[in-house]
Amino acid sequence: MLRVAIDAMSGDRGTGDIVEAVRSVLARRDDVHLILVGDPGLIHQHIGSNPLTQGRHSVVASEEVVTMDDSAAVALRNKKKSSMRLAINLVKEGQADACVSAGNTGALMAISKFVLKTVKGIDRPAISAIIPAINGHTHMLDLGANVDSSSTNLCQFAVMGSILAEAVDGTDRPRVALLNIGSEAMKGNEQVKQAAPLLAGSSLNYIGFVEGNEIYTDKVDVVVCDGFVGNVSLKTSEGVARMVSHYLREEFKRSTWNKLVGLVARPILKAFGNRIDPRRYNGASLLGLQGVVVKSHGSADAVAFANAIDIALLEIGHNVPSMIASRLEASPNAA
Amino acid sequence: MLRVAIDAMSGDRGTGDIVEAVRSVLARRDDVHLILVGDPGLIHQHIGSNPLTQGRHSVVASEEVVTMDDSAAVALRNKKKSSMRLAINLVKEGQADACVSAGNTGALMAISKFVLKTVKGIDRPAISAIIPAINGHTHMLDLGANVDSSSTNLCQFAVMGSILAEAVDGTDRPRVALLNIGSEAMKGNEQVKQAAPLLAGSSLNYIGFVEGNEIYTDKVDVVVCDGFVGNVSLKTSEGVARMVSHYLREEFKRSTWNKLVGLVARPILKAFGNRIDPRRYNGASLLGLQGVVVKSHGSADAVAFANAIDIALLEIGHNVPSMIASRLEASPNAA
Repeated sequence: MLRVAIDAMSGDRGTGDIVEAVRSVLARRDDVHLILVGDPGLIHQHIGSNPLTQGRHSVVASEEVVTMDDSAAVALRNKKKSSMRLAINLVKEGQADACVSAGNTGALMAISKFVLKTVKGIDRPAISAIIPAINGHTHMLDLGANVDSSSTNLCQFAVMGSILAEAVDGTDRPRVALLNIGSEAMKGNEQVKQAAPLLAGSSLNYIGFVEGNEIYTDKVDVVVCDGFVGNVSLKTSEGVARMVSHYLREEFKRSTWNKLVGLVARPILKAFGNRIDPRRYNGASLLGLQGVVVKSHGSADAVAFANAIDIALLEIGHNVPSMIASRLEASPNAA
Repeated sequence: MLRVAIDAMSGDRGTGDIVEAVRSVLARRDDVHLILVGDPGLIHQHIGSNPLTQGRHSVVASEEVVTMDDSAAVALRNKKKSSMRLAINLVKEGQADACVSAGNTGALMAISKFVLKTVKGIDRPAISAIIPAINGHTHMLDLGANVDSSSTNLCQFAVMGSILAEAVDGTDRPRVALLNIGSEAMKGNEQVKQAAPLLAGSSLNYIGFVEGNEIYTDKVDVVVCDGFVGNVSLKTSEGVARMVSHYLREEFKRSTWNKLVGLVARPILKAFGNRIDPRRYNGASLLGLQGVVVKSHGSADAVAFANAIDIALLEIGHNVPSMIASRLEASPNAA
């Protein structure tokens, strides 16, 4: 049984969507036990008259909620009975194999790091996500946990990303690249220039620099970057996808004829829309911790949140934290 | 007469596309004189039997070409008779009002800075481009001229971007924002955190932080960032737009019926494609120089290169370099 602790109180949409996500995952998979952490009254109210699969879920009561405005320090020090903290505690205590939360990223990172600790050899955990690409997908990290990453940090991100891609995709020797602003060695900022020779001398399948546009191609499996850069790139992608969808809708509404054609084309446009639906890619992994922690987008609905739970299940199934730990133990200078 | 010097030898597609771009601009506008700098034989071969508008173009002979592999230092020191250098010299000598080149960005920046000098009060020129947005467009800088920008650099970029938006769009008090990874004051890297209070205390219409997705909205007129971050964001956008178009084409090819619908929807899809066509946005301005220099994408075709010429004409028409100079003279601590 794979056991996931769910922070049922955090996120913009509230407990209702989270309960629906739990319902859909339990209906799909019979090897999963989900632990809802939150206000029991609220959780049962949302479960309502349509009970969840018996015996494969439980509820743990929490007393408070980490808000989006709480600083990481406040959340860590003052909210020890929050749904987020208790969910992470369950992982630490071995009662859950993973934790999923749609709450405050900074707080989730700080509490996870404090409670679970990092794997030996990793200074700072990183946020990694799966990015859609032409003919496949790419793993990208860091997406915002660390600003001003050093070359050493970048190398650690590369090791973790490579192990993740190998584990969850079954890719043999994933192609790892550094995100840069050109392909020549002289380009880039200091951290990237210093990280390049370190990675070239490592045991990873390092393929050099990629530029922003190459993230979305099948040229690379793991894209490594500083968290500031990665976060801007990810959010930029969301913005572009939204603008492009907006333009497409506008064109199909420009005249009565266009609207008619749009009606005929609707199933095709819907299939297209599904492919770029950000909910399909919801769920970012906090890598480098002694445990699986997955961050859902704050505005995730039931479909998106269920996807984040799936990511946690995938990482538990492939034992990602122990793989990272044992790889670093076997070869502490893997990068 | 607005006079633009055209580097006719640089870029991936060669002189033919550049001559066609010149032809189309001259056909559209009768207030323009274009000076083609390059190999006269090659240029005339491409002009061929269909001569350009008489009296509104001239050819200046160059002897060499700055290649994409040349370092900025080599291009600056050893290629003094290159098409790029001579085109910039024409601006310095007052024989042209602007220069457009599809060549090596680093070399173009280095030569422009050496020959034309920066405006007093600007330490480092920045690359600025117009980014499409929902209901309008955004000016974004720096897009790759400066990595590791300081907070002072960011403030100078903000001043230049604000003046550019005011001049070319006629926007009164353009809304200026810093690109960051969250909207809270505690988020971001050191440079961004230090630049924020400086901008808040300036005479600019500073609206705070925006995240990557907001670049493509009508929330902001000028987005300011470090060149590494800006370049990654811009290239990411290209990659996403290409992937999305690829997905859309795939869906309209999935079956015979889909292909038929695609045929009917073709004019609509074409109108959509035109709106996200990167050629429409080709042409980045090197801001902060004592003269107008526009960089075209290396792979620009005739349509795209003509757009870069249009951008140069717009900046000459609005006298952007003198506006930046006089604003900084009037209020040296504008930022």
